[in-house]
Amino acid sequence: MRAMVTMGHGELDRIVLHEAWPVPRPAPGEVLIRVGACGLNNTDVNTRTGWYSKAVQEATTGSAYDRVDAQDPTWGGAPITFPRIQGADVCGRIVAVGEGGDASRIGERIITDNWLRDPSDPQNKDTAGYFGSERDGGFAEYCTIPAVNALAIDSPLSDAELATFSCSYSTAEGMLTRAQVTGADTVLVPGASGGVGGAVVQLARRRGARVIALASEAKHAEVAALGADRVLPRAPEDLRAALGAEKITVVADVVGGPYWPMLIDILERGGRYTCSGAIAGPMVTLDLRTFYLRDLTFTGSTVIDPQAMPNLIRYIEAGEIRPALAATYPLDQLRDAQAAFIAKRHTGNIVVTP
Amino acid sequence: MRAMVTMGHGELDRIVLHEAWPVPRPAPGEVLIRVGACGLNNTDVNTRTGWYSKAVQEATTGSAYDRVDAQDPTWGGAPITFPRIQGADVCGRIVAVGEGGDASRIGERIITDNWLRDPSDPQNKDTAGYFGSERDGGFAEYCTIPAVNALAIDSPLSDAELATFSCSYSTAEGMLTRAQVTGADTVLVPGASGGVGGAVVQLARRRGARVIALASEAKHAEVAALGADRVLPRAPEDLRAALGAEKITVVADVVGGPYWPMLIDILERGGRYTCSGAIAGPMVTLDLRTFYLRDLTFTGSTVIDPQAMPNLIRYIEAGEIRPALAATYPLDQLRDAQAAFIAKRHTGNIVVTP
Repeated sequence: MRAMVTMGHGELDRIVLHEAWPVPRPAPGEVLIRVGACGLNNTDVNTRTGWYSKAVQEATTGSAYDRVDAQDPTWGGAPITFPRIQGADVCGRIVAVGEGGDASRIGERIITDNWLRDPSDPQNKDTAGYFGSERDGGFAEYCTIPAVNALAIDSPLSDAELATFSCSYSTAEGMLTRAQVTGADTVLVPGASGGVGGAVVQLARRRGARVIALASEAKHAEVAALGADRVLPRAPEDLRAALGAEKITVVADVVGGPYWPMLIDILERGGRYTCSGAIAGPMVTLDLRTFYLRDLTFTGSTVIDPQAMPNLIRYIEAGEIRPALAATYPLDQLRDAQAAFIAKRHTGNIVVTP
Repeated sequence: MRAMVTMGHGELDRIVLHEAWPVPRPAPGEVLIRVGACGLNNTDVNTRTGWYSKAVQEATTGSAYDRVDAQDPTWGGAPITFPRIQGADVCGRIVAVGEGGDASRIGERIITDNWLRDPSDPQNKDTAGYFGSERDGGFAEYCTIPAVNALAIDSPLSDAELATFSCSYSTAEGMLTRAQVTGADTVLVPGASGGVGGAVVQLARRRGARVIALASEAKHAEVAALGADRVLPRAPEDLRAALGAEKITVVADVVGGPYWPMLIDILERGGRYTCSGAIAGPMVTLDLRTFYLRDLTFTGSTVIDPQAMPNLIRYIEAGEIRPALAATYPLDQLRDAQAAFIAKRHTGNIVVTP
């Protein structure tokens, strides 16, 4: 099969097209999927470049770091083995099942739940892996995944549209769940034009919350179309003044970086900060007085509740959330697609199709 | 009456002995207390020196800061009015009640619940004030307080011993409640020889948790006597190595400062950090990757649950927790007492008696 294979940590040129990579065989309990489309995500870039390593302190740039510690270059803090087919957000069809599997599922249209859990202890976050990181993913014509991670979906949306949801929307839903967002909240969303940011906008609105989005001005119309109640510039010099009388009870952030203290300063007493990324830089300065004197709660969110993806499929099928497909590239142009993804001039998600 | 009155922001000499300060009169709904003893706390020092101001970024030293912003020098971010009698932890007896009050309480032995809540909305953290900050406290022969904040206590402990509990133990219980500490947890306690740290040790043990205390070596025996399962040096260069196989699920911190990132690094996946102070410095460096990739939860704790003090009185009366009285000074030597408090060579709490 054709596959875009990441051969090691490094620049985009470490992703190599192979025309005759072996089609994987589904093990017992697994299914073989013919990939219809596969979405791009920051986690692919972070793992390739080694940004997750504590030895790295800069913002993500998509370029390689020369100080990656070999022991902690993945999201879970463990080494990665190469060659590796990355890519987490697959939409496709089941074309075979492993020995003893349910053959009636062959032909089923699915999207993937990317959290690979220990079947005997699915709530254990320590033993969870990620599709396209701890095992091969979807930047190929075929992939295998545990049958429980291939979730049937009934939708008029295209494969490319459906491949925008899994990673970013489940990440967003995980953040909102950890922060217990309800209709009583006003949620500030930095980086609202990104894949996760845009998903946070939609999913927070779905919960009835008021949503204030931060995005660069060129993208304001697109972010407003996602449902944000207000859209402000990406990083107002005086955020408090820009917000006026808004009382921010939750900040849902994947940006971090030098602007971060401002996001914390504007939280109301009892407010919550929830985070699932730090593309503008992981090292931030926290004033513990602001944190404790205002009774704030911070929740980090990575390994999400097993119920998140089934819930998302229900929202998709009911039309409560919709895809933000920015562009589709052929699989063999994954490097160009990822360069565009890293440049962040798009709104929403970019996918590749075999 | 005799009172030690804080005349303005500044050094210890701003606390002035007045021999004939007017005895306060209890308003309707209030009681007049003859003070038997009053405990010292960091919040007295922080308010006097203006450390709560965002303009200040250093550790607490007990000395005045020359860059205090007049708008935010108190815990709640509001200006303070002087003269002010500070001192929160009063043990004493009710000697009068305000108009319409319950005269049968005269003679009752009480300790104070220092959170002054809006009677019509007691759960509202935004409108809560603190005894000795938003109104005069107990560094005097007499003080007044709302009747609901004077809690009857039946105990063989001395007034000085009972005056060690309210601020530090309620702060500690608030932290443990916010972090939902149970018998399944192993709690790391930096600064375990301090008033709040020692209270965290006792109250976490009371919940059945395993407790690892950090304290300077000269105080190890005293900290062990509080019930810590293990006592380690104050700031091991390699905390992970010092902990060995211990799996830390909760860090309960009032220290902060340069050592802080180490406290976060050793938390298990899903671990919790709870904070109610930062005596070694408020500005800390946070790696958002550690925070979000490990699904951590941080809870800041200041305005505590109204049930915390009634619970503490129950624990005291049942002998489940005990005082750590380090020293007693006469009221007119409050400045010496506070100098000793700031020097941090003691373990537990220091009190003054009129």
